Amino acid sequence: MDKSTVTQLNAQLQTLIGSISELDEVSIEQIQKRLDFLAKPQGSLGQLESLAKQLGGIQRTSSPKILKKAVLLMAGDHGVAAAGVSAFPQEVTPQMVYNITRGGAAINVLTRHANAEVFLTDVGVAFPLEGDIIHKRVANGTQNMMEGPAMTRLQALQALLVGAEVAEEKIRAGYNLLATGDLGIGNTTPSSAIVALFTNSSIESVVDRGTGIDDAGLIKKRHAIEKAIELNQPDPKDALDVLTKVGGLEIAAIAGSILQAAASRVPIVIDGFISTAGALIAAKLAPKSIAFMIPSHGSVEVGHRKALAELGLDPVLSLNMRLGEGTGAALTFHIVEAALLILEEMATFADSGVSESN
Amino acid sequence: MDKSTVTQLNAQLQTLIGSISELDEVSIEQIQKRLDFLAKPQGSLGQLESLAKQLGGIQRTSSPKILKKAVLLMAGDHGVAAAGVSAFPQEVTPQMVYNITRGGAAINVLTRHANAEVFLTDVGVAFPLEGDIIHKRVANGTQNMMEGPAMTRLQALQALLVGAEVAEEKIRAGYNLLATGDLGIGNTTPSSAIVALFTNSSIESVVDRGTGIDDAGLIKKRHAIEKAIELNQPDPKDALDVLTKVGGLEIAAIAGSILQAAASRVPIVIDGFISTAGALIAAKLAPKSIAFMIPSHGSVEVGHRKALAELGLDPVLSLNMRLGEGTGAALTFHIVEAALLILEEMATFADSGVSESN
Repeated sequence: MDKSTVTQLNAQLQTLIGSISELDEVSIEQIQKRLDFLAKPQGSLGQLESLAKQLGGIQRTSSPKILKKAVLLMAGDHGVAAAGVSAFPQEVTPQMVYNITRGGAAINVLTRHANAEVFLTDVGVAFPLEGDIIHKRVANGTQNMMEGPAMTRLQALQALLVGAEVAEEKIRAGYNLLATGDLGIGNTTPSSAIVALFTNSSIESVVDRGTGIDDAGLIKKRHAIEKAIELNQPDPKDALDVLTKVGGLEIAAIAGSILQAAASRVPIVIDGFISTAGALIAAKLAPKSIAFMIPSHGSVEVGHRKALAELGLDPVLSLNMRLGEGTGAALTFHIVEAALLILEEMATFADSGVSESN
Repeated sequence: MDKSTVTQLNAQLQTLIGSISELDEVSIEQIQKRLDFLAKPQGSLGQLESLAKQLGGIQRTSSPKILKKAVLLMAGDHGVAAAGVSAFPQEVTPQMVYNITRGGAAINVLTRHANAEVFLTDVGVAFPLEGDIIHKRVANGTQNMMEGPAMTRLQALQALLVGAEVAEEKIRAGYNLLATGDLGIGNTTPSSAIVALFTNSSIESVVDRGTGIDDAGLIKKRHAIEKAIELNQPDPKDALDVLTKVGGLEIAAIAGSILQAAASRVPIVIDGFISTAGALIAAKLAPKSIAFMIPSHGSVEVGHRKALAELGLDPVLSLNMRLGEGTGAALTFHIVEAALLILEEMATFADSGVSESN
């Protein structure tokens, strides 16, 4: 490991973390006042009202606007896939990448529906890849965490900063509502490990069937996580250690994109289980980043609710989905936009001639 | 009461109920096959897949399409409002009607966002109303159910058939995805009574704060429902009796619109608490109508989950809303459309070159 580079990248990460600040309370109060003037019972639009306030607090304005929306989809492979933890072979990762570049995947359909775009980054796929994706490969997949750390600390830092870099580039291009997305065969396995460690939960209570493994596969998956944690002894107090030892390259990039969104004061919608594992890494590195996260759906994965609860996030969609790719987050874009339209377009009690409550 | 007219309208209602049939299993199977060919783990899109199948089963085709979308918003007043069961005075009902005709209400904002329309019907507002609404008033509000039945059986039948008539008219005009919506000060009170009776629940467990009553109001509201049930002795086995004695004119029209949607094989999204009370009436009159209902959000009202469970419906949105007007249903339009886009636009395993699971 090149120690000087680790030191350098770590300094870069600390600078990023240090530039994250709080939401703007003045804007939040102004929006609360406006919401209370709107011709409806106070608070009756629930999460739509919370979202409007959150966006104002993030953008530091009482009139938050969404200009362009993007799902930042991070792809990576996992050495632990060799242990038979997934229903699909690792070759499916590059196949799915090409399905996305051709526009035929679920995330393409759902981003088109939301008038958003999807940008796919190769953070660490294990196969050669060409074409219209963002090429930022840190390694050809992770190592098998059952045999040692999934990554080196250098790789973990590099992958985190890839996520930050991609997010920064898109924010500079005018995207001001982002979402996370993941792609990588086997990635519910490291995600389960991360969630178990940060929520202090038993492996059993956070491991589920991912894309659809059978009972034998489920046993292999639990065993893989147990062995990886036992062997590598990740320290739950050190998020970078957890990420390095039992994480993934795309999970690191997701965490990095969240940190950059927070630093650039851009809201970011957190997709399902893998994205929430990335969000946990971001939150442990920088607790202030949580205020910039928007929850999306509650996935079928049993560990997802625990992970969301650890972050204090309530999902707005309940669709029993378990696909990843950013699909739940893309659906949530419609809801976030609805929140701002309510703020902009609804009549006040005064405009409407509606009497206020007794 | 004009007995011959009751007999006549009842016959009309029975004809409507009799014309509701089952979903088409052949189309559902065809769609299931198509969904399983799509390049994703089987079943991984959860409720989106269920919605696609439901729409196919309703439209009797493997390629269901949504042409035009409408929220059928039913307005009515409630004699029981005199008992102080709401945070707002009854005068707010007509004020809200005009706010909607001017386009300034939450439902206007959310239907515009969903590229849908809202049609407001006066089924029984207690004040004179003019302007661009559907004028079908059955009575100037219901009677106070604490002093006798809220309606006559004739009025209940008339209001049910108003809902059916409005739905039929819109379906004939090409709207093939409908949603319910309600407007009427005091209407969580009859809705709570209906839910208590049909779910065999205690009054306490289904009565909540509606638009925002205080503790004293909550006590009055519970008392009003207890007294109304005790005095009128509605028979939970006779849905029309429940509707007549402790229901509402707009609740009847909501039930009627659901029955007509089912008879015309058009899916209908059920909004929040009041709409679900209407859906319970429809379901008890015609159990087959449940298959045509699409759930929307889980409201803050404690009785809502019980009512949804009685119908076997799982809400897809969790936004802590309690506004009514069809707002939760309008937000759900985005999700229903997403389900059909997935079916139409996603690549299959064969198209995409993605390998199937092991």
